[in-house]
Amino acid sequence: MDIRQMAMAAKSAAVKLAAVKTAEKNDALQAVADALRAHAAAIIAANREDMAAAETSGLAAPLLKRLKFDETKLAEVIAGVESLLGLPDPVGTTLRATELDEGLELYQVACPIGVIGVIFESRPDALVQISSLCLKSGNAALLKGGSEALHTNRVLAAVIRGASEAAGIASGWLQLLETRSDVNEMLALDDCIDLIIPRGSNAFVKYIMDHSNIPVLGHADGICHVYVDAAADLAMASRVVCDSKCQYVSVCNALETLLVHQSVAPAFLPRVVSDLQARGVRVLGCERSRAIVPSLKEATAADWDTEYLDYVLSVRVVDDFDMAVDHINEHGSGHTDVIVTADAGVASRFMSLVDSGNVFWNCSSRFSDGFRYGLGAEVGISTNKIHARGPVGLEGLVIYKWLLKGSGQIVADYADGRRHFTHLPLKKDFSI
Amino acid sequence: MDIRQMAMAAKSAAVKLAAVKTAEKNDALQAVADALRAHAAAIIAANREDMAAAETSGLAAPLLKRLKFDETKLAEVIAGVESLLGLPDPVGTTLRATELDEGLELYQVACPIGVIGVIFESRPDALVQISSLCLKSGNAALLKGGSEALHTNRVLAAVIRGASEAAGIASGWLQLLETRSDVNEMLALDDCIDLIIPRGSNAFVKYIMDHSNIPVLGHADGICHVYVDAAADLAMASRVVCDSKCQYVSVCNALETLLVHQSVAPAFLPRVVSDLQARGVRVLGCERSRAIVPSLKEATAADWDTEYLDYVLSVRVVDDFDMAVDHINEHGSGHTDVIVTADAGVASRFMSLVDSGNVFWNCSSRFSDGFRYGLGAEVGISTNKIHARGPVGLEGLVIYKWLLKGSGQIVADYADGRRHFTHLPLKKDFSI
Repeated sequence: MDIRQMAMAAKSAAVKLAAVKTAEKNDALQAVADALRAHAAAIIAANREDMAAAETSGLAAPLLKRLKFDETKLAEVIAGVESLLGLPDPVGTTLRATELDEGLELYQVACPIGVIGVIFESRPDALVQISSLCLKSGNAALLKGGSEALHTNRVLAAVIRGASEAAGIASGWLQLLETRSDVNEMLALDDCIDLIIPRGSNAFVKYIMDHSNIPVLGHADGICHVYVDAAADLAMASRVVCDSKCQYVSVCNALETLLVHQSVAPAFLPRVVSDLQARGVRVLGCERSRAIVPSLKEATAADWDTEYLDYVLSVRVVDDFDMAVDHINEHGSGHTDVIVTADAGVASRFMSLVDSGNVFWNCSSRFSDGFRYGLGAEVGISTNKIHARGPVGLEGLVIYKWLLKGSGQIVADYADGRRHFTHLPLKKDFSI
Repeated sequence: MDIRQMAMAAKSAAVKLAAVKTAEKNDALQAVADALRAHAAAIIAANREDMAAAETSGLAAPLLKRLKFDETKLAEVIAGVESLLGLPDPVGTTLRATELDEGLELYQVACPIGVIGVIFESRPDALVQISSLCLKSGNAALLKGGSEALHTNRVLAAVIRGASEAAGIASGWLQLLETRSDVNEMLALDDCIDLIIPRGSNAFVKYIMDHSNIPVLGHADGICHVYVDAAADLAMASRVVCDSKCQYVSVCNALETLLVHQSVAPAFLPRVVSDLQARGVRVLGCERSRAIVPSLKEATAADWDTEYLDYVLSVRVVDDFDMAVDHINEHGSGHTDVIVTADAGVASRFMSLVDSGNVFWNCSSRFSDGFRYGLGAEVGISTNKIHARGPVGLEGLVIYKWLLKGSGQIVADYADGRRHFTHLPLKKDFSI
């Protein structure tokens, strides 16, 4: 099958999957979990093959670690699949119900998006996670994993497909792409694929966004800020800054630029720099920062637009609140930005004026995450301004349709004034 | 100002506009309505200039009619602006609230999208309508109207800008583009513009979608179907078909293809063709339709993919329900599709399986419209599969941000097991 045929098959399956009841989807998820358990040996053997090839080709140690799929990883992903059983089905919820006229009832009802293309890097667990999220939300999926994980992914996809189809899910709902040229073909299929979720490096996500007309859910950058206000508790500020920067440096919600109000900079900067340096962070400062802490290396204009993803932090002293907000809205990536202040009025203005998906007051930027938010499962993090923003749970994989139940009504009767709309809100869910 | 500068000014204004309270936005809308009334003479004079130029250049009569902006049109748009005062502000609504831990509260709060680019054709009333919708929802707007309406649009934009800015709305929130090359420049500004809403012909909308990375809200086609099932009330079916086709032929929710179950085709086709022909509709039929009504002209494969927007209808006899659903999902544009049947089970399956924004049972396709749905105001109709689908009201112009109020919490405490998430739903709205 070529990629178009695969996408057409997925589209055809998606239509059937949209009509599958919650209980049947949960049964299929349980069957997938059981099958993963039953095929543990084959999955792990395939992963050993991938690991051996990756070691031979000299894949870097952190990537090897992500590629590895052993009993522990398998148990984790099986637990992840089973945890979806308990989550509410996002499909079928009545979002709005209106009587347009007697016997003419309008319902806005959540439904799957359709066909989701997901591209992820070397972690095979992502394949299980994404395909089970798609199944729970009634979407068909075209998946492309890292080429290093090809054998593992083939076995995983075959197991998931076999178990779910045996449980009654329409054949074709899960398709595995294998090459980079497959991905390029997929990017052109905007008549079959409704949404692409790329998970990976900035450059990679940007490439996908630039080369497809299909909507993309994701984030290219994560340049996050903490602004320490004139009214900040400085001990709290340093704790929040250190956690935001150091708790896990290589992730999108880690701090990259610290902004400090000029009135507290002399008291705060020496303290926070010392705390950061004790944790191995290299601190780069603007001219005013370096006047206070002369040992700082110089931050240049390019630093304000740099996502280090490392033990590096840029620091800028700002004149006032407005300059901090302007800096964030100009240089940030709309991901996660934090204010530390004891002044509730200032915090409120910050939360209104900072145009980011996640805006925090007096806590670490590292909280912006689907599991920490209690979403139950995370599809990804979005810096989009439409559809879904910030950490995205299952509800990011659904849209809605408008269902209108009539009894022979025609528009001419309303246009000619023979009948009139009532537009009464209905307190009931859609049913036939 | 070049287009980038205009977009940057709009982006800067959008940040401030996002923080404006409902009462201030309503005051600004009232000021706009009053100013439109006060400047009626200048507006109508500018429109006379446009009309005179258009008549000289031989603009077609229907376009002249749309271009005309007289006392009646002005009164209508002023009423439209004032009607927005009574609508709920979509911004600021708390969509979800969760206690993550004691003193750490997460709120998902609706907020404006940011900067909306709207491109519309010759109707100057669209400028007023769109700009007031953007103002109510807290979005900045870049507007490009039809070049025939340039003088009218200039005066309207100046009046709206002047009145709203005098009422305290940030300068720069409303920008008027004037040429086609302005539009092409705008399409590239995906760093400043968050959403494009093109209103116009299919070819035009398709052009916009193909030439921009900015998300587009709209619909290119409207190939709508009525399926007359084996269990249909045939008198109702003919009424619904005639209304769907003829009530207003040149709109996206008008019927283009009629599908008829083979078991009722012999009884239904002669009747509906006669009803349609009496209204001046030219009916094209598949081979099986023509075996029943030999006078029909032949429908070719291309007809299933044609949006006539005229007194023309294609008819196909289908073997069964599945063939009807497959036809719709293959040839439809996901806009509006209707089943006529007395069998509730069949209707339920149709509503699940047809992948369209609007799926109707026993009523005319012409009901898919924001005003008929009771949305209060219509931004447009979307065949997107993400963000907003079908008729889109004000809520299509908002997204949300996640606001987290803490008291010094850091992630390390949770990662190390010193603290635990509570994830309790909160029954309160965001406030500081």
